[in-house]
Amino acid sequence: MKCEIICVGTELLVGDTLNTNVNYLSKELSHLGLSVCYHTTVGDNPKRLEEAVKIAFERSDLIITTGGLGPTQDDLTKEVIAELFNRELIQDEKIKEELLQYFTNREFSFTPNNLKQTFVPENAEVLANPCGTAPGILMREQGRVIIMLPGPPREMTRVFDEDVVPLITQKSKQLVISRYYNLSDIGESAAEDRLLDLIDTQTNPTIATYAKMGEVLVRITANGDDEKALNTLLDQYEAIMLERFEENIFTFSKESLRETVCKLLIEKNISIATAESCTGGLIASQLTEQAGISKVFGTGIISYSNQTKMKLLNVRKETLDKFGAVSEETAREMCENLQKIADAELAVSVTGIAGPEGGSAEKPVGLVYVGICYKGKTQITKCHFNGERKMVQIKTANKVFHLIRKTVIDKNS
Amino acid sequence: MKCEIICVGTELLVGDTLNTNVNYLSKELSHLGLSVCYHTTVGDNPKRLEEAVKIAFERSDLIITTGGLGPTQDDLTKEVIAELFNRELIQDEKIKEELLQYFTNREFSFTPNNLKQTFVPENAEVLANPCGTAPGILMREQGRVIIMLPGPPREMTRVFDEDVVPLITQKSKQLVISRYYNLSDIGESAAEDRLLDLIDTQTNPTIATYAKMGEVLVRITANGDDEKALNTLLDQYEAIMLERFEENIFTFSKESLRETVCKLLIEKNISIATAESCTGGLIASQLTEQAGISKVFGTGIISYSNQTKMKLLNVRKETLDKFGAVSEETAREMCENLQKIADAELAVSVTGIAGPEGGSAEKPVGLVYVGICYKGKTQITKCHFNGERKMVQIKTANKVFHLIRKTVIDKNS
Repeated sequence: MKCEIICVGTELLVGDTLNTNVNYLSKELSHLGLSVCYHTTVGDNPKRLEEAVKIAFERSDLIITTGGLGPTQDDLTKEVIAELFNRELIQDEKIKEELLQYFTNREFSFTPNNLKQTFVPENAEVLANPCGTAPGILMREQGRVIIMLPGPPREMTRVFDEDVVPLITQKSKQLVISRYYNLSDIGESAAEDRLLDLIDTQTNPTIATYAKMGEVLVRITANGDDEKALNTLLDQYEAIMLERFEENIFTFSKESLRETVCKLLIEKNISIATAESCTGGLIASQLTEQAGISKVFGTGIISYSNQTKMKLLNVRKETLDKFGAVSEETAREMCENLQKIADAELAVSVTGIAGPEGGSAEKPVGLVYVGICYKGKTQITKCHFNGERKMVQIKTANKVFHLIRKTVIDKNS
Repeated sequence: MKCEIICVGTELLVGDTLNTNVNYLSKELSHLGLSVCYHTTVGDNPKRLEEAVKIAFERSDLIITTGGLGPTQDDLTKEVIAELFNRELIQDEKIKEELLQYFTNREFSFTPNNLKQTFVPENAEVLANPCGTAPGILMREQGRVIIMLPGPPREMTRVFDEDVVPLITQKSKQLVISRYYNLSDIGESAAEDRLLDLIDTQTNPTIATYAKMGEVLVRITANGDDEKALNTLLDQYEAIMLERFEENIFTFSKESLRETVCKLLIEKNISIATAESCTGGLIASQLTEQAGISKVFGTGIISYSNQTKMKLLNVRKETLDKFGAVSEETAREMCENLQKIADAELAVSVTGIAGPEGGSAEKPVGLVYVGICYKGKTQITKCHFNGERKMVQIKTANKVFHLIRKTVIDKNS
């Protein structure tokens, strides 16, 4: 099945927005065994959009558009496509109701242009968008399928994953089985290097690595029509993965390290507290991104100044004077004292130099100490991270989640 | 002049590579005053590439391709385009010499397929590529210009910047001046609604709105050949913007709200402290993303449990019992007590229900109280945010930055 992705938005053509949508959709569609043959981008221009859809309709079986479904005058995707295929736009009462509710809940004033989003081409299916106000739309036309998705990436991925993927997998007769291995504490090139013999000779299964911040996701995908044979094949590769990446695999899914660790803490009911200096609340905010974390997380202290380290974390003045704020000793006092203050089973502390200022020959930018105090034992890890300020903060948080997992798994297994 | 960018490479269609080239070129071409009207991506497939070039040739004046100029069998851009316009490929002795030199300098072994890169369509210009082995190529054909650039971003940008930009600027006499207005505390559709009279009749200047999380960026761009006249025109629109969005404009640039507020605090030397419940450290981590914030930020407390609210922020048990953790009263005690504990000029508190659990009819998910205590005066703002847990947290943080700016500006102006 030939697919074409049409992205609509002048912000893409003037380079204000990097087109991550087309990358996401291409990856996911390919993975589902579909051939993406074309990407086309046009601006918020009805004539050019119409022509692009006409061309796509001639050469592709599945056309997915992103963008142009919003409430404003320049959002025209639905209108153009409906007109091209002579379909009326009909107001959908259910969408209208949900939309009004959305605005009521936010106490936002409802402006008339929002009503535009309640209209749907006749005989089209509505794909619910729980993350925003513009629903997706699916139209079947002369044996082809046209799917219109909203432009904001969070909304687009949600509608695609929940409504489009099931439709595609239902239709295809070819089996595509993927297994995922998510690795932490290793770079993408190092991971790929360890897999080079397999990647260089790959036919079936195929192997792909995806680098995310602090994580490398390895996908191994087998194609065929015999489920059992595919799984036997994948089992062989799984044995290799386990042999080569035992230390690094934190989950056998796309689940992030952050989420894996949060779920682990909740599941094992291990209470945690954080004391952050250079990460300034990033670790706590990543913990609290997780629903249900309040079961185990009650206290975080951001001690960005020495004053606060002394006042709220009881770090001794002598320690700060003698060893400095960025030191093994300060990290140790921070987490050991925090454990008592917060009455938590596991206490984490972070102190380091995120930069760009504050570094020295002895203590350069990127130097970070992580303290983990768990069941009466404290472990301090000295790290050096490269990159700009925000990168140092992010890499520190990733390392902390990696270390928490190691600590919790070691002691409880 | 209508431009079209054609990217060639199967790695783009399967989602292995994020297309940063098209973003770079779009931004640079728009900045030079050219209209990029289409992006097209095809794989390493001669038939589809030929069709894409044919379509582009019908509708665009300048066609820029990226990719497919390398030495391997699937690099076909030059071959396809030369054949389409009936041009012979002729070996270029100068390129050959440089290529051999390139390999000698790097002690790379020269393989025969590299010779493919020394061939150029007849009557085409060679655009030197000092970063790689595939030179760019410029062809003029029936009043149109076709420029082929290499695919690797480092090589593409170098050839574009050094050889293509001078060609374009020489030709164009047109000036393009843009002004930016970044708005907070208003949605994109509401912002556009207030600009509809101007957007509906726009010719020159053009007006565009770009929604980011919690921000709406308005760009007004004027084209012409007289700088003074363009600025006079833009001044008229600026007066309208100030009249309609006085409350919302936080900066006359693309700078984010977070960055604007952090710089404001540092510049005015206003010390700040944070007490966060439902945002769990997000506000503090956004503050500490800013280099130099340690001058004004020393203390953040994440009081995720009632226990911590009492212990670290001295919120009274009676307050929590009587009004609940998510209440005006608790928000008030949190920020007023924090101000004393942290000895900060401005103290912010946040308490709310991020969801998905914990909501009730009286206090639904998305209900958030923000407290700001500044110079002895406390202001509590009750908010309702829609969306998932993380969205509620992000929207809360945006609102807090908006409120901090308002507070600081009101009192000091």
